[in-house]
Amino acid sequence: MILNKIGHILKDYDDFAIVSHVSPDGDSIGSMLGLFNTLKDFGKSVDLFVDDILPEKYSFLTGYDNIKRYNTGSKYSCLIILDCGDVLRLGELKSLLNCSDIVINIDHHISNTLFGDVNYVDSNASSVGEIIYQILKINGYNISKTTAMCLYTSILTDTGGFKYSNTTSMTFNIVGDLINTGINFSDIYSRIYDSKTLSQTKLLEKVLSTLEVYFNDTVAVLTMPYKLLEECNAKENDADEFINYARNIDTAEVGVFIKQINDFKCRVSLRSKNYVDVSKIAAYFNGGGHIRAAGCTIEGSISEAKNKILDALKDVLEVGHK
Amino acid sequence: MILNKIGHILKDYDDFAIVSHVSPDGDSIGSMLGLFNTLKDFGKSVDLFVDDILPEKYSFLTGYDNIKRYNTGSKYSCLIILDCGDVLRLGELKSLLNCSDIVINIDHHISNTLFGDVNYVDSNASSVGEIIYQILKINGYNISKTTAMCLYTSILTDTGGFKYSNTTSMTFNIVGDLINTGINFSDIYSRIYDSKTLSQTKLLEKVLSTLEVYFNDTVAVLTMPYKLLEECNAKENDADEFINYARNIDTAEVGVFIKQINDFKCRVSLRSKNYVDVSKIAAYFNGGGHIRAAGCTIEGSISEAKNKILDALKDVLEVGHK
Ligand SMILES: [Mn+2]
Ligand SMILES: [Mn+2]
Repeated sequence: MILNKIGHILKDYDDFAIVSHVSPDGDSIGSMLGLFNTLKDFGKSVDLFVDDILPEKYSFLTGYDNIKRYNTGSKYSCLIILDCGDVLRLGELKSLLNCSDIVINIDHHISNTLFGDVNYVDSNASSVGEIIYQILKINGYNISKTTAMCLYTSILTDTGGFKYSNTTSMTFNIVGDLINTGINFSDIYSRIYDSKTLSQTKLLEKVLSTLEVYFNDTVAVLTMPYKLLEECNAKENDADEFINYARNIDTAEVGVFIKQINDFKCRVSLRSKNYVDVSKIAAYFNGGGHIRAAGCTIEGSISEAKNKILDALKDVLEVGHK
Repeated sequence: MILNKIGHILKDYDDFAIVSHVSPDGDSIGSMLGLFNTLKDFGKSVDLFVDDILPEKYSFLTGYDNIKRYNTGSKYSCLIILDCGDVLRLGELKSLLNCSDIVINIDHHISNTLFGDVNYVDSNASSVGEIIYQILKINGYNISKTTAMCLYTSILTDTGGFKYSNTTSMTFNIVGDLINTGINFSDIYSRIYDSKTLSQTKLLEKVLSTLEVYFNDTVAVLTMPYKLLEECNAKENDADEFINYARNIDTAEVGVFIKQINDFKCRVSLRSKNYVDVSKIAAYFNGGGHIRAAGCTIEGSISEAKNKILDALKDVLEVGHK
């Protein structure tokens, strides 16, 4: 069985590199660090790499400071790649593939290209954290509090707080086991979801003041002029979740968030609840995404972008409502 | 064992009243309806009572429309009281105690006064929903999808989305079992946490615009002049969660929300994170609460109330910081 095979490799090899995707998230960081902390407990040499800036909110996890951006010529017996559907997700770090004896690919994306020497892809797993838990359990590893914090973070974030439909009874059973190690999961949850900067909160207020509704309140639109970021001393990713305030309006089928990039261009995010396929709207403007979450870039001012999106939505809402 | 005894009563009796507390919440409504739906499947006669207005967000649960406010003289063989630490929590419905043959008291508040003929109080249970699950399981009941939706709602809401420290591995195991019935838990989660009215969102924007920070950003204050409710066409409980926007400021140890009641009075909510005991601050103004969440009423205008609270906090912050 493949999970045992991975277990043997973890035991037999002595030096590892663990790497994950650009735009790191709670699952990629948590699963890397969960595995890292367990291997370190067994005296293994483990280097960690991510070719990107790390979100600071995960800095409380043990091992976070060990994650490096560049590999300066080291070679590894075993390279473990986590949470990556393909090698392009590694950014510049895909060069690591050429300086490792064996490559293990562990993932939960159904689209995974099976680029490893050993591949374990479980698309039913909510997160790679869930898979790392299983690998450790099946191979007789004790899961320490330190590792449990990392894997809890993985699962928590990739399930959106146990809310997304990728959450299964297996997920809940694993989380139950992880919290039995005595981790302060309540604190971890708060750190990840409940901590906002002053700038971000000010930015939220300014963006909420742009709220408009259309078509019998079935479309809610929020806009963010690019000058607001400077005005609030905020960063672009401070606005990452704002689309939800549009989507969450109870009467809204579609939530729209228009982020002005510059005087000539806007980035538009779209969310829907029940019957509008927003990926079609996005595709019409050469964007992409899923049925319920999509995005596109539109040339023009905020009001031009808004009018174009509303025109496109108008037709779809009429059809969808029948 | 007491859970079996309750099981026998559920089987032997034919007509029940189930009642819970004023200021109904997800746990009280969910546990009532979970038990209701199961008993109805067995052909029992079950009346439901709550002496209050019900939050509409739970109206998707089967049986919600059966909950009545008043008992017009009916008598019951068995009265089941859920989620009530004492009989005062029943409001006017405590009169039901005098027209029932047997009273079963099921609760998870450690302070429960054991007012029933049969009492089952488990203060380790996250919610009464968790207890109802156990009663049904132990007594061989199959948990239907309809009942699972109710009990999931109970547990979800009383644990704050599996975030509060009352969540245990037992909680997660139960939830894993409940979602295996095939309920759309993702939809339930969204209905309960992600649905806001337009008025509420406008009110949030106006309240966020009052954000101020003090004492090196360790205290964040939000205020709500009473006129805002009218201006935004909002209801008072629309502001229930706004205190979190103050508390969640990353640098803040204390979050304050000052809600103006009228020209002469303000209601003040206080939250802290790590070292300030806000119950002491509240007590100083004749209010009450817990270490991390408390409240009080202060005479005066918003700015008078704010100055009084800041004065009180100033001393505590200096002491607590040592
Ligand atoms: Mn993932
Ligand atoms: Mn309760």
